Amino acid sequence: MFEHVDLSMLADFYEFTMADGFFSSGLEDRIAYFDTYFRAIPDNGGYAIMAGTEPLMEYLNNFSFSEDDIAYFRSKQMFSELFLDYLKNFKFTCDVWAVPEGTPVFPGEPLVIVRGPIVQAQLLETMILLTVNHQSLIATKANRIVRAADGRPVMEFGARRAQGYSAAMYGSRAAYIAGCTSTSCTITDKDCGIPAAGTMAHSWVQMFPSELEAFRAYAQKYPTNCVLLVDTYNVLKSGIPNAIRTFDEILKPIGIRPLGVRIDSGDLTYLSRKCRKMLDEAGYPDCKIVASNSLDEYIIRDMLTQGAKLDSFGVGERLITSKSEPVLGGVYKLTATEEPDGTITPKIKLSENVAKITNPGFKQLYRLYEKESGKAIADVITLHDEVIDSGKPYEIFDPEHTWKRKTITDFTARPLLTKLFENGHPVYTPPSIQEVQSYCAAQVDTLWDEVTRLENPHRYYVDLSRPLWNMKQELLSKHSI
Amino acid sequence: MFEHVDLSMLADFYEFTMADGFFSSGLEDRIAYFDTYFRAIPDNGGYAIMAGTEPLMEYLNNFSFSEDDIAYFRSKQMFSELFLDYLKNFKFTCDVWAVPEGTPVFPGEPLVIVRGPIVQAQLLETMILLTVNHQSLIATKANRIVRAADGRPVMEFGARRAQGYSAAMYGSRAAYIAGCTSTSCTITDKDCGIPAAGTMAHSWVQMFPSELEAFRAYAQKYPTNCVLLVDTYNVLKSGIPNAIRTFDEILKPIGIRPLGVRIDSGDLTYLSRKCRKMLDEAGYPDCKIVASNSLDEYIIRDMLTQGAKLDSFGVGERLITSKSEPVLGGVYKLTATEEPDGTITPKIKLSENVAKITNPGFKQLYRLYEKESGKAIADVITLHDEVIDSGKPYEIFDPEHTWKRKTITDFTARPLLTKLFENGHPVYTPPSIQEVQSYCAAQVDTLWDEVTRLENPHRYYVDLSRPLWNMKQELLSKHSI
Repeated sequence: MFEHVDLSMLADFYEFTMADGFFSSGLEDRIAYFDTYFRAIPDNGGYAIMAGTEPLMEYLNNFSFSEDDIAYFRSKQMFSELFLDYLKNFKFTCDVWAVPEGTPVFPGEPLVIVRGPIVQAQLLETMILLTVNHQSLIATKANRIVRAADGRPVMEFGARRAQGYSAAMYGSRAAYIAGCTSTSCTITDKDCGIPAAGTMAHSWVQMFPSELEAFRAYAQKYPTNCVLLVDTYNVLKSGIPNAIRTFDEILKPIGIRPLGVRIDSGDLTYLSRKCRKMLDEAGYPDCKIVASNSLDEYIIRDMLTQGAKLDSFGVGERLITSKSEPVLGGVYKLTATEEPDGTITPKIKLSENVAKITNPGFKQLYRLYEKESGKAIADVITLHDEVIDSGKPYEIFDPEHTWKRKTITDFTARPLLTKLFENGHPVYTPPSIQEVQSYCAAQVDTLWDEVTRLENPHRYYVDLSRPLWNMKQELLSKHSI
Repeated sequence: MFEHVDLSMLADFYEFTMADGFFSSGLEDRIAYFDTYFRAIPDNGGYAIMAGTEPLMEYLNNFSFSEDDIAYFRSKQMFSELFLDYLKNFKFTCDVWAVPEGTPVFPGEPLVIVRGPIVQAQLLETMILLTVNHQSLIATKANRIVRAADGRPVMEFGARRAQGYSAAMYGSRAAYIAGCTSTSCTITDKDCGIPAAGTMAHSWVQMFPSELEAFRAYAQKYPTNCVLLVDTYNVLKSGIPNAIRTFDEILKPIGIRPLGVRIDSGDLTYLSRKCRKMLDEAGYPDCKIVASNSLDEYIIRDMLTQGAKLDSFGVGERLITSKSEPVLGGVYKLTATEEPDGTITPKIKLSENVAKITNPGFKQLYRLYEKESGKAIADVITLHDEVIDSGKPYEIFDPEHTWKRKTITDFTARPLLTKLFENGHPVYTPPSIQEVQSYCAAQVDTLWDEVTRLENPHRYYVDLSRPLWNMKQELLSKHSI
């Protein structure tokens, strides 16, 4: 994983003022439960992809405050020495659960649950949201683009247009989880073991007296890795003829097949068909054609529908920023408090906007799979201690339109929330990034085609268990004013 | 400025393969010139705001490769030992010019110019683009939002929805440059001296047995800084009455005026008017009303047009991601090479897309101001050694529609590109962030209202000098095929 500086101070200022306020109110040790969830899937998609679990563990493993940090807070002249002492000797003691990276997830589902003293749980809000929101957003977008490419490799090329340094780094990691085959970003390869790939820039071609000389020099230097950028001057009149000549003159005599050509501008569909024909006729039917230039899932799908002869895609800005929908609006909401005797008191936040009303209580999240096909049928959000017995028929119902019911038999139930920390100690070993990528692909495969389509997907069922639904109704009627 | 880990490896992999290729081709020491510029202003605005200059200097000051980095490259089995030695002993020797942070800038203008050995200049591409693209994007968006707020403070609240850790940090810095008054982000305050501000979360209110008790506890803890979040249950029936009761019971007896209330959901325009009336009638006409919840320049303008009684705005996701246009598409293009005898050979990149044809040559950028009003008339991109003599009339002309001409008199000409590095040594002392903010506001003030309007702004003149225009035409006809 990436090296990084201490990010404990990357928190909204109000987390600290509230934390000190909890001290002043004698509430600091009260155990609180927080859920992290989002309300809408970007791009009106059928699902999102969870990402950020392992980076979040790194952050929590290093959560502490330096002398410098304490001095900064003291200079504000608004924090109690009691609180500053607490920060100085900070010891993380929360329990944390999260959905593993690469899992398809849906609106309203608890993706991260924190249980711990309110003063600690409150301080984590900003970084948990920042991590999960950003990385899941990019994984979700990348997975859409990978689906549109329909089996063709998608290379993440976005670093130069990313929203900052960690967006380039963690974004390329998220893109790989979601199915991209490589990244342009060197540091991601070095630190995360995600293969870096690249061809050449126009500047390479311009540095030589002619395009042909630039191509020759590149083929001589990288004969087994020879992808030539053919659009510096004119793709069909100059780029492809010079590429073919280079393949003939430099690679053929040493018995090496060219890897490909890249087109970075112009009408990619038209140009790719012309290029394909020229390369085939020159005896290079195995030479791949790579496309780049502001691609996304819609453009890739359209090009392929129109018969573009493209073998792989370098996708940059529209992936690394999730350009069509650059925000995943995850929130971190208090769902319960716990009395010293262990009694859990569920909490709710009302809103005039019904979608903003929270689901109360300490929860677990189950995914139910059809036994025969292995396909995912529905998710059920339950109270933490509920067990779904797959030996018996199980009735699910729509939490808003409760007359919509369905009884499920012959299913398996898998809890999705995994414990990451117990009393502040890590108890989860993250899988390798390659395992996460395979897991993601396998889990997306458990979704019906109706859910994975890019537009107008079927809405996947996410239901509340009867005990959770009852608890929510009770709180709603209690608070109605 | 923020601490950060070494980012020298945050570069596209092809920068390194090309760099080694330049070695193999004997071109490594050839002096090259690169321009950084963008082609379109986000949100169809009238101007962008340059940001990232100081962070870029930090990166360049620390550009080097560790033993670990070298070992990584060696493991790829494609780099020459000559090149790895070069990286190991890397010494930065480029000249770098940039437009100062906070300057309004326009499409096609060179924002950063690098002159140096091609092998070095090539390696800097990714980080220069990443830095300038991201930070200028956020400054540009923040400046639009600040303009819409029409003098009311705009607080940057975006950390939790930012695209990664540095997006939160450098994004809040860029937002401050562009006119935001504060940030929610603690680390930005600590490391950059940008004031952090915040109120409370819904969780604060939920942690107490009642909203009233939560408000009382907060007012007791932070009497001089008392902004209460009034929408946890019901703004008008519960939030405002409880806030007023808290002000009356806790603050009034100790002679402290309340700072404000914050509304984070519902119809902000309607609610703010009702709240204003209730607060006024209760004797708190000076209590500010703060709005948050997915705001941007359009929503703020609409609310104010409809008579919303709002005194300040907390703006999060739509600012920190520049949601409506989350990419600034800056590019880094070779514009010239220099022979050992000092002769500069201009370079051009053609494209079937006319907008993608580059401006060749080593350049300077001038802004011409009307002497009497101080207003900016036009920018002129010139060759580096051209001097615009403001003592004489100066003819500008549209580089595409050359019959559009104008002769300017009574003007001052200011070169915008400032030298940051000379032969690898820093020669520029960045101003303080507060100075940058003031400079930005003053420079935006030099633009005519027609240019600063949010929609359908007048297109500001960015012309090429006659020598530069002639050079470009010459290269175009030479390369036409």
